[in-house]
Amino acid sequence: MVQPIAFYFDFSSPYAYLSAQVVDDLAARHGREASWKPFLLGVLFKVTGQQPLLDMPVKGDYARHDLARSARALGVPFVVPDAFPFHSVAAARAFYWLEDRDAAAARALGKALFDAAFGQGRDISRAETVIEIAAGQGVDRAELAAALRDQAVKDRLRREVDAALEAGVFGSPILIVDGERFWGHDHLPDVERWLETGGW
Amino acid sequence: MVQPIAFYFDFSSPYAYLSAQVVDDLAARHGREASWKPFLLGVLFKVTGQQPLLDMPVKGDYARHDLARSARALGVPFVVPDAFPFHSVAAARAFYWLEDRDAAAARALGKALFDAAFGQGRDISRAETVIEIAAGQGVDRAELAAALRDQAVKDRLRREVDAALEAGVFGSPILIVDGERFWGHDHLPDVERWLETGGW
Repeated sequence: MVQPIAFYFDFSSPYAYLSAQVVDDLAARHGREASWKPFLLGVLFKVTGQQPLLDMPVKGDYARHDLARSARALGVPFVVPDAFPFHSVAAARAFYWLEDRDAAAARALGKALFDAAFGQGRDISRAETVIEIAAGQGVDRAELAAALRDQAVKDRLRREVDAALEAGVFGSPILIVDGERFWGHDHLPDVERWLETGGW
Repeated sequence: MVQPIAFYFDFSSPYAYLSAQVVDDLAARHGREASWKPFLLGVLFKVTGQQPLLDMPVKGDYARHDLARSARALGVPFVVPDAFPFHSVAAARAFYWLEDRDAAAARALGKALFDAAFGQGRDISRAETVIEIAAGQGVDRAELAAALRDQAVKDRLRREVDAALEAGVFGSPILIVDGERFWGHDHLPDVERWLETGGW
């Protein structure tokens, strides 16, 4: 039985947006599924002492250029939202809440949230925006609004963030293939090669 | 007339060691030359406020694992020297001094220095070690020893570091292809694609 590929990401991570465009197809090419696992990078940054990439001197400018170039390579739109970096708590909570009810719907919502943020520049840090996007996918507004305030849903996300940290996740995106971590959108060719060859 | 590919690196950078194994062949496949440009990452880190990768919590452990894995993918040996991070001033000065006299010899010395550090774990921060390695390539020991103390040679390296900063270099390795920066060993497939397609 083959394990799914774990796709750890923060909805506020522009490189994860890029990987999200291709990770399902990559997995499928090797008879795998990608298991989407949103977490909160800010919590991890407290552990690793890192600062958000786009805020770094010099490196931040390069990253903006590289992101736009990488998006062109994939043929997908790319914008950095005006409100950036942003909190992705509402997005991540909505994802896990929906996943417990309908995994495919959660996946579709994940894609729509990424597209809203980095394809269209919308502010998905706002619960209202997340609800509006989910409603566009057929999710009940009132149910989701209640879920986003539900302690059980908050706890679920907290457990997922703890589990990510436990799995050695420290950045976004990180893919884990059969216990092997690959950090960064740039590493997807290595993930592909690892799947093709069984590792080296 | 085609421009050379600028290969900016610090001799103390393990990812640059990996790129150094393949950058000349990569350039040659596209009718280019790689122009090796050692600089001092420590000077740039003062500007960008970064800390050495392998010292970062969590991320450092990942990087060691990723470096070993990437070296296996290239089929080259890899060790992190006991003295790490280390200063590469002597190595960089020796490189530029030799380059002014014999560019091919400087390239060969550059490869030998990288191999000594990350292939064999030797401490190339010591001028004596750099001189010994250079002597193994036919360089006169006394001449090089004098050069490493020569103010003109020191100034030459300082100018190169300033020029790297001016060119937007902030990490190691960084390749610049026709004005386009690519940061990181992981980005070499993009460099190849850029050269194949003329950019996108």
